[in-house]
Amino acid sequence: MKITNQRVMGIDPGYDRLGIAIMEKDPRGEKLIFSTCLTSDKKADFSQRLWQLGKEIEKIIKKHRPTVVAMEKLFVTVNQKTAMAVAEVRGMIIYLSAKYQLAVNDFSPLEIKSCLTGYGQADKKQMISLVEKILKIKTKKKFDDEYDAMAVALTYLAKGNWR
Amino acid sequence: MKITNQRVMGIDPGYDRLGIAIMEKDPRGEKLIFSTCLTSDKKADFSQRLWQLGKEIEKIIKKHRPTVVAMEKLFVTVNQKTAMAVAEVRGMIIYLSAKYQLAVNDFSPLEIKSCLTGYGQADKKQMISLVEKILKIKTKKKFDDEYDAMAVALTYLAKGNWR
Repeated sequence: MKITNQRVMGIDPGYDRLGIAIMEKDPRGEKLIFSTCLTSDKKADFSQRLWQLGKEIEKIIKKHRPTVVAMEKLFVTVNQKTAMAVAEVRGMIIYLSAKYQLAVNDFSPLEIKSCLTGYGQADKKQMISLVEKILKIKTKKKFDDEYDAMAVALTYLAKGNWR
Repeated sequence: MKITNQRVMGIDPGYDRLGIAIMEKDPRGEKLIFSTCLTSDKKADFSQRLWQLGKEIEKIIKKHRPTVVAMEKLFVTVNQKTAMAVAEVRGMIIYLSAKYQLAVNDFSPLEIKSCLTGYGQADKKQMISLVEKILKIKTKKKFDDEYDAMAVALTYLAKGNWR
């Protein structure tokens, strides 16, 4: 088994809810260090929401010291306005990653599903169950966004595009 | 004539070239304080480019002390990849604006054209000529992106959505 001392910060970007998972890989497998779902004040201006989310992300970076970022990359499907706003959140995260000298690796939802399940048609429930199995965690009160963040971090570790 | 002591920072967002114009309105009309076209290293990672652009924007904010931001907002037309990358640049700028407590006002290209020319079909040359006329500036070696930044700043001042 390939071993890395990298600590990946997986991110499922969003302005209502933003999932974060910090993960490492050791000889026994992938280990979840921390995960959370950040939220921002719906009544605040969008710029204030970005600022709030950014502050929380900086706290997590300082506390958990990731060495690399893996983030979900959306493409416009149905709602263009939402897709653009999520891209703006991504921009803030990419900027902060540069501040802490963390390389950013993007993965599409399809890449994540394909990598973890071997095909791209897995549903939410299957993905969650698989993530729990890989990480040997039991179902807790976690948000879907946290599982999405774990999934992108696992994808990064599985793809092995690190040294 | 309505007078404001607001100093607007107009921004035409982009990762290759990013136009910025600082503008004020006084009894004699709109006054261009400063404009520039920022560029980032094409060979660098996207996150490094965002970081480079952000550093330059912070320098300009600290030097010229704008009180508000007016920024062009793109919608996906032809190239989705470009539109998403520009939205990521916008996210970095929105985040920095919050850092300096500057409200961000978005205007679509159509709103800008309609506001300045009275209709939405003006071409690039007409827009540049109009911006030069309003600001009483002569054609210098400025980039189109600078004119776009001036146009969005003028739109903000003309719309009068300030107190």
